Order: sequence, then structure tokens, then C-alpha cells
Amino acid sequence: MEKFEPVDPKFEQRLRKGFGSQRLMTTIGAELTKVGPGEVQIEMPFGEAFTQQDGFVHAGIITAIVDSACGFAAYTLMPPGSRVLSVEFKVNFLRPAAGEKFVATGRVIKPGRTLTVCSGEVAAITDGKVKLIAAMQATLMAV
Amino acid sequence: MEKFEPVDPKFEQRLRKGFGSQRLMTTIGAELTKVGPGEVQIEMPFGEAFTQQDGFVHAGIITAIVDSACGFAAYTLMPPGSRVLSVEFKVNFLRPAAGEKFVATGRVIKPGRTLTVCSGEVAAITDGKVKLIAAMQATLMAV
Amino acid sequence: MEKFEPVDPKFEQRLRKGFGSQRLMTTIGAELTKVGPGEVQIEMPFGEAFTQQDGFVHAGIITAIVDSACGFAAYTLMPPGSRVLSVEFKVNFLRPAAGEKFVATGRVIKPGRTLTVCSGEVAAITDGKVKLIAAMQATLMAV
Amino acid sequence: MEKFEPVDPKFEQRLRKGFGSQRLMTTIGAELTKVGPGEVQIEMPFGEAFTQQDGFVHAGIITAIVDSACGFAAYTLMPPGSRVLSVEFKVNFLRPAAGEKFVATGRVIKPGRTLTVCSGEVAAITDGKVKLIAAMQATLMAV
Repeated sequence: MEKFEPVDPKFEQRLRKGFGSQRLMTTIGAELTKVGPGEVQIEMPFGEAFTQQDGFVHAGIITAIVDSACGFAAYTLMPPGSRVLSVEFKVNFLRPAAGEKFVATGRVIKPGRTLTVCSGEVAAITDGKVKLIAAMQATLMAV
Repeated sequence: MEKFEPVDPKFEQRLRKGFGSQRLMTTIGAELTKVGPGEVQIEMPFGEAFTQQDGFVHAGIITAIVDSACGFAAYTLMPPGSRVLSVEFKVNFLRPAAGEKFVATGRVIKPGRTLTVCSGEVAAITDGKVKLIAAMQATLMAV
Repeated sequence: MEKFEPVDPKFEQRLRKGFGSQRLMTTIGAELTKVGPGEVQIEMPFGEAFTQQDGFVHAGIITAIVDSACGFAAYTLMPPGSRVLSVEFKVNFLRPAAGEKFVATGRVIKPGRTLTVCSGEVAAITDGKVKLIAAMQATLMAV
Repeated sequence: MEKFEPVDPKFEQRLRKGFGSQRLMTTIGAELTKVGPGEVQIEMPFGEAFTQQDGFVHAGIITAIVDSACGFAAYTLMPPGSRVLSVEFKVNFLRPAAGEKFVATGRVIKPGRTLTVCSGEVAAITDGKVKLIAAMQATLMAV
């Protein structure tokens, strides 16, 4: 893992404010559990209101937390006053999204003035056992 | 567009039941608005509870409706008794997800016994004006 | 299909020069067979030197022609003096790359000042029969 | 990194034979430089015949080596008698493909009876300096 130097020393404060204004994160009960330069972790409990036909969490909701984790990971390295947008992402679903809670991690692979590339993953946790359920590769843009 | 022949003449009934049991679709107010062999359309109103920091619908929710549209499009061509899983998808976000409602369309590009490939898109509608906001390419699996 | 208006009336001339300087295209015997605003077609014969272990054309070479088709499709709409780079792409392989020749088509879905999104496909042709073998979704950048 | 147990003790022999019959690898001068359970490395020198308009290696060729690295990484964990196919992949290009040689690494993230998910990366090496130039996420299939 490369070490990144944030240009904005107050990046965490800025990021927590951004996370707090993502209404979806409140709706699904997601929380920021780790913030560092180029790396962000988001946790979410299982919620029946967000499931698909087999009772697993819907792929779109799993995508939402890992997209936010990647977006905010990119955001930690952006200058003050910038906004971050998801240009595109690709997600592989490795196992059914079954568990008590879900932990999404986003990490910067390559920061850039305009585009930042991140990798993300989601783990499902049941009785303390951790299983990797999704992997993302994403392109974010500073505007 | 290729024409597809469903192997299950009752595919629509099966699909509507599947859609009805996706709790997330009810939670976000999504409805099935078109069902045909290899093609499915899902509509969703704007909802503040599902937005990101700029007041647009979160990328994960846009992804959810187009993932479901692609999944069900693949499902129309699968045999009775099968289930459909999202193996992976890639989404490009073309414009901010602003609008009164959102229409996701999923279409089968290449059906298969195990894997089916679909393309999907999401349009935002405001005052009757339609704008393409997202494009998906997805791999689905019959199990 | 949307109609696009190129900002550079001499886009075709510029594009043919760019294609001519892609050494790989010469190496694999690829030719530009169609150039229009936001759409480009490239043809390539089968070549044993470019195959994988089963005797089909290698996925990387199929990717090369459809990446070039998407890149040049984006390039048709860019201003004079700009260069085009592939930011990222995703390709689904739908059937084995067997055939006498291969036709890659790239089309702009959404042009932009910085980023352009394209979709691409590759068809294999054998005895006049056409089969879709690959589908791409790509993000290109003007620099 | 997870540790994987190959089901075929002679996986390396089988893999080297597979690599040797990929004509494209010979054409571009690529070599297998590392083979382990779930991980494969391929090296390739710079070659002018494989460049794009700016003199960098074409994205399709960079994709070819990392697709082969991912495919063979998946193949190390497959049973004797199986073949491996690329279902789909996504590649981000992080820096121009400039360098004396290029090292592609493919690693299994999640093996499976039918589908295996891998991540891959390509580094460019110039005067002993290593730069990450591409990142892949890929789905492979055993047939």
C-alpha cells in the first residue's frame, strides 16, 4: 500500500460533513468507522427494507456503501473546496450479501488532479466471522 | 435489437412475483412498468431519503434500479425454477441524478444457459424532458 | 442513436492520421472502414500470430480493435489539437473469437469536454455470417 | 492475501504448456516469470510494433498480458482437464505505458467451481524504477 499525503490538513472534518449530508447513509444506518489519507471504512447493519428476492441485501445497497467508501477515500486527498463525483465503477459480487453487518473499505490506488482510481471491497460479518462479498474498481473525479 | 424467445411462457407472472419480493423496490417506490422477452423497465420517483451530499439520487440507488432491470431482463429468458444472480456490473454515470422520476431499462445482449450479458440505462425525467444519466453493462447468472 | 455535431470540420483527416500512426493497427492488419461523427469502424483479418491457446484471437487483440474504435469515435467530436486517452474500459466476451475477419464498432454515448463515454462491439464474420463476440463500455479523456 | 490450495499438484506443468501455446505471447515476446497457487506473473519488453499514436504500448497489448496473467492465475486452481475463458474484465489505465519492460501480475481474489474473480496490475519498469500503469478486475470461467 502506498502512503498518501493529503493536501488539506482538515480533510477529516470536511469528509465527516460530506458523509453527514448523504441522506442515503442515514436511511440505511451506515456509519463512518475509519478515515485516513486515501482510505475510508463504512459500516452498515443488515436491514430487511433493503433486501432482494432471496432475503440478501440488494446489490445496489452493497454498491452504495462501497461507492461512498471509494468516493470519500478519493476525497481525503482532494484540495479544500473540491467536490467528488463517481465517474464509473465496476463491482464483482463474490458471495451472497448475508450477514449481521457489512463493512465497506475504499482505498486510493492512484490519486490525480482530475481523476482518482480506487479499489473497494465489502465484507459481511456474522458471529464475528468475516467474509469478502464484493470487490469494486472505481474512477472518481474532482470538480 | 435481437428478438428472444422465452422458454417459459409464464415468464411475466414469475417475474412479477420476483419483483414483488424485492423489498428494496418497495422501499424506494419502484415499479415494473414494462416486461417483455429480454427487456424490462423499472420506474422510481425522486426520494430525498436516497440522496447523496449534493441532493442528487445516490449512485447506489440508480445502480439498484438498473441492476434489477438487467437481472429481470435476463430472468425473462431463463427456465422455470431458476434463480438469477448478479455476477458483476459496470456503470458509467453520465449526468447528475436529478429529476422527478427515473426510468431504468435492462436488455439482454446475449442470453446463455449459465451466463447472460445485459446492457442497461437510466433516464431522468423532468417536466417531460428525458435525459440519459447512466449506462450499465452486466453479467447475470442462472442458478 | 443521438446525432452529434463535430466541432472540427476536418475531424476525419485528423483521425486517419492518428490511426495511421498506431503501429499496432498496422501490425495486426487492421483498417479503418467507417468514420462518422461519433462512430468509427475498424476491421481486422484473423491472424494466427495473435491467438490464444485454443486458436481463437486473444482477448487483448479483440480489446485493442474495439478500444481503438471507441477512442477514435470519441476523437471525432474533440476539438483540433486535442489528444485522446483511454481512462478505462470493461469488455464482455460473448462468444469465442473465431472467424475470418473481425469488425469493431465504437459509438459515443455521451460526449463531454473532458470525459466521453462510448459503447463498442466486435462482430466475427465467417462465410458472410455475422456473430457478436464482444461488448465494451469505455471512458475516454481529452487532453 | 489468502492462501490457496491447488487441486491439481501438476498445475505448473499444465500452465506452462498453456502459456506456450498462446501464440500472442510469443509474438509480443512475453514470458512467464512467476507461477504460484492463485498468482501468476508475465513480463514483456517494450516493442515498437505494438504502440499507439503517442509511442506508448497500446492499451490492448497491456490488457493482453494482464488478462493472460489473471486467466492463468485462475487456471492454477482449476482441476486437471479444465480450460479457462475470460468472461469479462475491466481495466483502468493509470499512467502512459512507457518503459523498457512491463510486468503483469494476476491474483485470484475468489476461486469458484464455475467462476473465479481475479485482480491484476501492470507495472512499467525504466532504469529499475517501477510504476503502476494499469489495474484490472476480471471474471474467468472454467469449462
